[in-house]
Amino acid sequence: MDAEFEIIRRLNEIIPSHGRRDARAGILTGIGDDAAVLRHSRKSDWVVSCDASLEGIHFHKEIQPPESIGYKSLVRAASDLAAMGAKARFFLLTLGLPREKTGRWLDRFAAGMSRAAREMGIRLIGGDTSKNDRVEISITVFGEVEAGRAVRRSGARAGDMIFVSGRLGAAQLGLEIVRRGLARRASLKNFIRPHFFPPIRLELGEWLSHHRVPTAMMDLSDGLSTDLARLCAASRVGARISAGRIPKVRVPETLVRRRINALDLALHGGDDYQLLFTASRKSAGLLRRRIAGVPLTCIGEITRSRNILLVRADGTAWSLPARGWNPFKKK
Amino acid sequence: MDAEFEIIRRLNEIIPSHGRRDARAGILTGIGDDAAVLRHSRKSDWVVSCDASLEGIHFHKEIQPPESIGYKSLVRAASDLAAMGAKARFFLLTLGLPREKTGRWLDRFAAGMSRAAREMGIRLIGGDTSKNDRVEISITVFGEVEAGRAVRRSGARAGDMIFVSGRLGAAQLGLEIVRRGLARRASLKNFIRPHFFPPIRLELGEWLSHHRVPTAMMDLSDGLSTDLARLCAASRVGARISAGRIPKVRVPETLVRRRINALDLALHGGDDYQLLFTASRKSAGLLRRRIAGVPLTCIGEITRSRNILLVRADGTAWSLPARGWNPFKKK
Repeated sequence: MDAEFEIIRRLNEIIPSHGRRDARAGILTGIGDDAAVLRHSRKSDWVVSCDASLEGIHFHKEIQPPESIGYKSLVRAASDLAAMGAKARFFLLTLGLPREKTGRWLDRFAAGMSRAAREMGIRLIGGDTSKNDRVEISITVFGEVEAGRAVRRSGARAGDMIFVSGRLGAAQLGLEIVRRGLARRASLKNFIRPHFFPPIRLELGEWLSHHRVPTAMMDLSDGLSTDLARLCAASRVGARISAGRIPKVRVPETLVRRRINALDLALHGGDDYQLLFTASRKSAGLLRRRIAGVPLTCIGEITRSRNILLVRADGTAWSLPARGWNPFKKK
Repeated sequence: MDAEFEIIRRLNEIIPSHGRRDARAGILTGIGDDAAVLRHSRKSDWVVSCDASLEGIHFHKEIQPPESIGYKSLVRAASDLAAMGAKARFFLLTLGLPREKTGRWLDRFAAGMSRAAREMGIRLIGGDTSKNDRVEISITVFGEVEAGRAVRRSGARAGDMIFVSGRLGAAQLGLEIVRRGLARRASLKNFIRPHFFPPIRLELGEWLSHHRVPTAMMDLSDGLSTDLARLCAASRVGARISAGRIPKVRVPETLVRRRINALDLALHGGDDYQLLFTASRKSAGLLRRRIAGVPLTCIGEITRSRNILLVRADGTAWSLPARGWNPFKKK
């Protein structure tokens, strides 16, 4: 059992909460999806979500420029809006800061966050700052989606096709380069970028919800093997995907020699912030190869039997363990 | 200049933001007040605010029971709703946890938070959990207020009367007892309570906004001397308060002997979560001595000249320095 899921389940059980749809209270989706959905008006719903970025867990102050910390923490939070098909509107920023970071560091952090905010069209409306002995960032994002069109994790049905956007494993490849102390090699610079400045898939998410394409959707934050298992659990289905069809990051020769494998990165690497969604065969017909400039790839299909299978090049099917990012696993 | 204020000003300048009313975007109050106000429907507005509770800064794991950490972190966040006169509705919880705290500790924490949630009628609708090497809590609260009635900090006018709820300095007195290692004395137990389980003033805030009594309001989180200066700065006015009229916590004899002074606690002690508000003489006539079970006291009046004066028992008036809690001040 997913440790994070278990913690959320217990909080949900002990604290008065909306664990599901509660139309009278104006709650269309409560705990357990990428974001909560609140009724706003006849035309639109609010989508809200929060996300923490902690020093030493989600970013590393020695190697990550402050611009990247600001940029990525906002992208991480807003990725939950993309996952629901919402348009980003507002955000609240809670910031714990050491005093020595309240000068130049803060300006660089804010410049990175500002760039992400401009790219997304999202605006800061409030927050809370406090002294802390290290940087702690918590962001709450507000998005807007056409009434009733927020895309949940739980709608996948047997026979649906499974799609992902972009190429998977790019962020993990960047992290591996940094971890191996190769970040200064000029030939590898471009490969680090997706780790520091991940892509924003809001426009794609909005297009998909507006055209009612996905039956279920989520963002790939913890790795395909882990996130696909979550989508399938929420939808009470299974999946069968083909190793050969997964769009994988290109691994430079020097890293292939160090046993970095593109399929492993694509299956289990975290932090990609691409979208994973399912669509009926009919809806899938609406899709072009690129939507909002982003390539889409069908990697397999949803099955009635509840396991997740990976079909290898030789045609053999293997059960796919969830080996993506699990913040509470034992090291 | 207030260091926290300066940080918020810079973030606001660098990051695209709504620093003020922007009716077209549905923003009725942006950065700089206790909470942001968003248009919801013709009948009501949303009030949203976020707040972090950090180990070693806002709570102390050695001395504070997990129930108190859960209770107080939710009260702290919801206090910003009380300050705007809103009814508490929903909250999001972002939780960083060490793995050894995911068992019994988490259950006790959740039980305390649950008690606060029940008392306020607020419900959990989502969140984010992550492993961390210590406890980090960030909460975003959503409140609802009758359309146009959210009370800002900026409406105080010269001649308005200044009110506070409850008795001030009670939380700081509790903290001083704990700091001096006296927490186990049976005779002092009751004095510690307001530090661990602060009061909730939501009902009072709602009554005041519903009856349109306050011209300005905020919650007392950092101490009267600091918070009154903030309210006056936002309203571009000054204040004149009487030392003798401030409702002070009763200090037990054993602590008086240790030079703990009730007036100092009431002026500069943080974490009380009582309400501070101003009202015209006419509106003040609507007030009873207790509203929603909470005593109200007039402590002085708003002045045109922009300084904050404290009138002592002998009739002399002294400039009152903001000596409350400032998270970024040098030690």
